[in-house]
Amino acid sequence: MVAEVVPSTPQADPYAGDPVFELHLGGKIEVTSSVHVTNADELSRAYTPGVARVCTAIAEDPALVRKYTWKSNVVAVVTDGTAVLGLGDIGPAASLPVMEGKALLFKEFGGVDSVPIALDCTDVDEFVETVVRLAPTFGGINLEDISAPRCFEIERRLKERLDIPVFHDDQHGTAVVVLAALRNALRLTGKSISDIRVVISGAGAAGVACARILLQAGVGDLAVVDSKGVLHEDRPDLNPVKLSLAQDTNTGGLSGRLVDALDGADVFLGVSGGTVPEEAIARMAPGAMIFALANPNPEVHPDIAHRHAAVVATGRSDFPNQINNVLAFPGIFRGAFDVNASRITEGMKLAAAEALAALIPEDELRADYIIPSPFDARVAPAVAAAVAEAARRDGVARD
Amino acid sequence: MVAEVVPSTPQADPYAGDPVFELHLGGKIEVTSSVHVTNADELSRAYTPGVARVCTAIAEDPALVRKYTWKSNVVAVVTDGTAVLGLGDIGPAASLPVMEGKALLFKEFGGVDSVPIALDCTDVDEFVETVVRLAPTFGGINLEDISAPRCFEIERRLKERLDIPVFHDDQHGTAVVVLAALRNALRLTGKSISDIRVVISGAGAAGVACARILLQAGVGDLAVVDSKGVLHEDRPDLNPVKLSLAQDTNTGGLSGRLVDALDGADVFLGVSGGTVPEEAIARMAPGAMIFALANPNPEVHPDIAHRHAAVVATGRSDFPNQINNVLAFPGIFRGAFDVNASRITEGMKLAAAEALAALIPEDELRADYIIPSPFDARVAPAVAAAVAEAARRDGVARD
Repeated sequence: MVAEVVPSTPQADPYAGDPVFELHLGGKIEVTSSVHVTNADELSRAYTPGVARVCTAIAEDPALVRKYTWKSNVVAVVTDGTAVLGLGDIGPAASLPVMEGKALLFKEFGGVDSVPIALDCTDVDEFVETVVRLAPTFGGINLEDISAPRCFEIERRLKERLDIPVFHDDQHGTAVVVLAALRNALRLTGKSISDIRVVISGAGAAGVACARILLQAGVGDLAVVDSKGVLHEDRPDLNPVKLSLAQDTNTGGLSGRLVDALDGADVFLGVSGGTVPEEAIARMAPGAMIFALANPNPEVHPDIAHRHAAVVATGRSDFPNQINNVLAFPGIFRGAFDVNASRITEGMKLAAAEALAALIPEDELRADYIIPSPFDARVAPAVAAAVAEAARRDGVARD
Repeated sequence: MVAEVVPSTPQADPYAGDPVFELHLGGKIEVTSSVHVTNADELSRAYTPGVARVCTAIAEDPALVRKYTWKSNVVAVVTDGTAVLGLGDIGPAASLPVMEGKALLFKEFGGVDSVPIALDCTDVDEFVETVVRLAPTFGGINLEDISAPRCFEIERRLKERLDIPVFHDDQHGTAVVVLAALRNALRLTGKSISDIRVVISGAGAAGVACARILLQAGVGDLAVVDSKGVLHEDRPDLNPVKLSLAQDTNTGGLSGRLVDALDGADVFLGVSGGTVPEEAIARMAPGAMIFALANPNPEVHPDIAHRHAAVVATGRSDFPNQINNVLAFPGIFRGAFDVNASRITEGMKLAAAEALAALIPEDELRADYIIPSPFDARVAPAVAAAVAEAARRDGVARD
C-alpha cells in the first residue's frame, strides 16, 4: 500500500503581526555575563585555572558562595503549570511565557535575577524533592501558578526543608497588596480594622492567603466562601486547609451562600471569578469596600460597584486601584536578599503591606488612589527596606 | 555558670584585592530582560493579560514554545559537584563558580543562554529524574563535572528520555578538540590516522570519550591506560564502561603499565594527571605527538616533551596548542539550536572536530599552531555551521 502524498501547504502564522506575539518572539529574558572575556588573561581569571581557587574557597567556607557567585541574588520561579493565570492546568511548557514575564518583572522592578523552572511533575512529593535538589543554586524560591490545595503543602514542606526564602506569590503577593489597599481604604472610610466584617469569595491560593494576612492584621470578623458556600466547621466536604480556615474564621457562625454573607458586610474581596449580583452588593454596609480582583472579568463590574461602595479596586490596569502582585514580590525578595534572610516571615509580609500603604500620604489619598501604581519608582525600594528591617526584627536576617 | 565572653574580631577578608576574587564578586552572570516595561500598555503585553494568549497558543500547539519563549536558546548547565575541575567532589555549592563560568562562555562565544543548575543529589536515579523534570524549561542539557563512571550512565539515560540535546562536555567537548588537534598534527607529521598507535592515559570521562571519538575517526590501534595499567579484557577489576572499552581497543593485546604501552607509540594523550617519565616518552615512535592535557601540571612538561615529539599540546593557555573545550561546546550547541536538533549525534561531533581543524589552512599549519585560539572569532560560527549541517545529514534537525 502506498501512502497518499499530501503536499504540505505552508500555513500562514496566525499570530504574525500581533503585537503581543511579536514581543514574545525568542522569549523575553536572556542570561548575560557581567564579566567579559576577550583574551587569555581574562579567561584564566573568569574560568580555569583561576576559578578553581574560588571553588576551593567556597568548599572551605560555604558562606562565601553568597559573596562570590550569583546565588545571593537569584530566585527560581518554579511552577508545574497546574494553575496558570485563569487558564488552569495547561502544563509546564505552556506556562513558560508567564514564568519569563515574572523573571522580567523581578529584574526590572527589583533588580533580582530569576530563572523560570517549569517542572514536568505534578506529584507533591516529587515536586518538593526536585526543588530541594535544585536549591543549592538559588538564593530563593518563588512558587508560581500551582493548583490549590497542593500549593499549600508544597510551600509548607519546602519552608521546612530549605534555609532560603520560599514564597508562593499567588498566595502572599496578592495578600500583601490586598492588605495594603485595605489599610488605605480604611483610612478613607474611617473604619477600624478590628470592627469591619470581611467576606472573601474564593478559597484557593489567593483566598486562603488573604484570609490569613487579614486575620494577622487584626480583622476580627471574616468569612470565606467557596463554590459551595460559606466555610464553617460543620461542612463535611472541606479539605484540611479549608477546615482549618473555617475554624479560624466565621466567628459570626454564618452558613449559606455568598449573597447571604454579604448582607451588612463592610468588605467584599473577590479572588475567584464568577459574578456577584448587584442586589447582594446593594445590601452591604454603608461605606462598603469592594475589591473585585478576578481577571479579566471582575466579580462586580466597577461601574456597578461604585453605585454601592465607597472604595472599589480591581485586578485590571484599565481601572483605578489595580491590585497587582508586582507591587510586592520584587521588593519582598529584594529586601530578603539584602539581609540574606533565611525565610519570609509573617512580619516581613505585614511590613511590606504597611510600607506599600504608607507610600500614599493622607493628603493624596482618594477613593480612586488607595494603592500606588506599579510604575511608581518608590515602591520596590520602600517595600525592600521595610522587609529587610522586619527580617532583622524577626531574627531571620543573616547578613 | 557564665559563658566566657569572647569578643568577636572582625576578620580581614583573605581574598580582598585578589583580582580573581574581585572579578567573582556577586557572580559572573545575570538574567536580563530583552523586553522593557515602563508603562501599563507594555506590562499588559509582556505580562497579564496579554501573556495569557501566548500561553494558550502554546497549550494548543506545543511546537510554538520554541518560537515564543527562550527555551530554544537556553541550556541547563547541570552538575552535582562530584568531579569539579581537578578538585574532585566539592559539592554543588562550591561548583557554582565553574558553572557560572560555563554560562558566561556559552553566551560570549556562542550567543547561547544558559543557567547553572548545581544539584544536591548524587544518586544516579535521582539525578536523572530531576533533570527529566526540569527539561520542559530548557532547549538542551550540558552535563558538567560529574564523576565517572556515573557520568556515562547519567548521559545515556538522559539521552534516552529526552528529545533535546544532552551533552557531557567533559567527555565530548574534550574529545572534539582533541580530534581536531590530532587531525592537524597528522597533517604536519604526514602520518595516517589508520596507521598510528595511540596511548591514552586516563579512563575517566575525558579518556573514554576521546577513545570513542578516535575509534570513530579511524584510529586502528589504541590502548587506554588507567591507574592499574593498560585496559584489557582479562582484567578482573574493570567496571562495565572500562570493560567495553577494553573490548573495543588494544588490538595489540598489550598489558602492563603506561610506560610499556608508550614503547613505539605515535600519540600520547594524557587526560588523567600524574607524571610520565622522560625515558618513556623517549621510546615513542619518531614524529611522536604528545598531548599532555592535565591542568595545571601536564603529564609531561612541554619543554621535555619537545625533546622527543614533533607536536606538543597541553591544556594550558600559557603554552602553544591549548586544548580548550571552549573551542567546541558554544559552537556545538549554537549549531544544534540553529536547526532545533533533537540530539547531538556522533556525526555532529566529528563534524565539529573537522571544522575546527579546517580553520588552519595548510600554509599556516605549524607544530606550535595545530588548533585555533579560543579567541579566534571564526571558531564558533564554523563549528556551528558544520554541526547544523551534520544534524540535517543525520536526520535529527527539526527546523
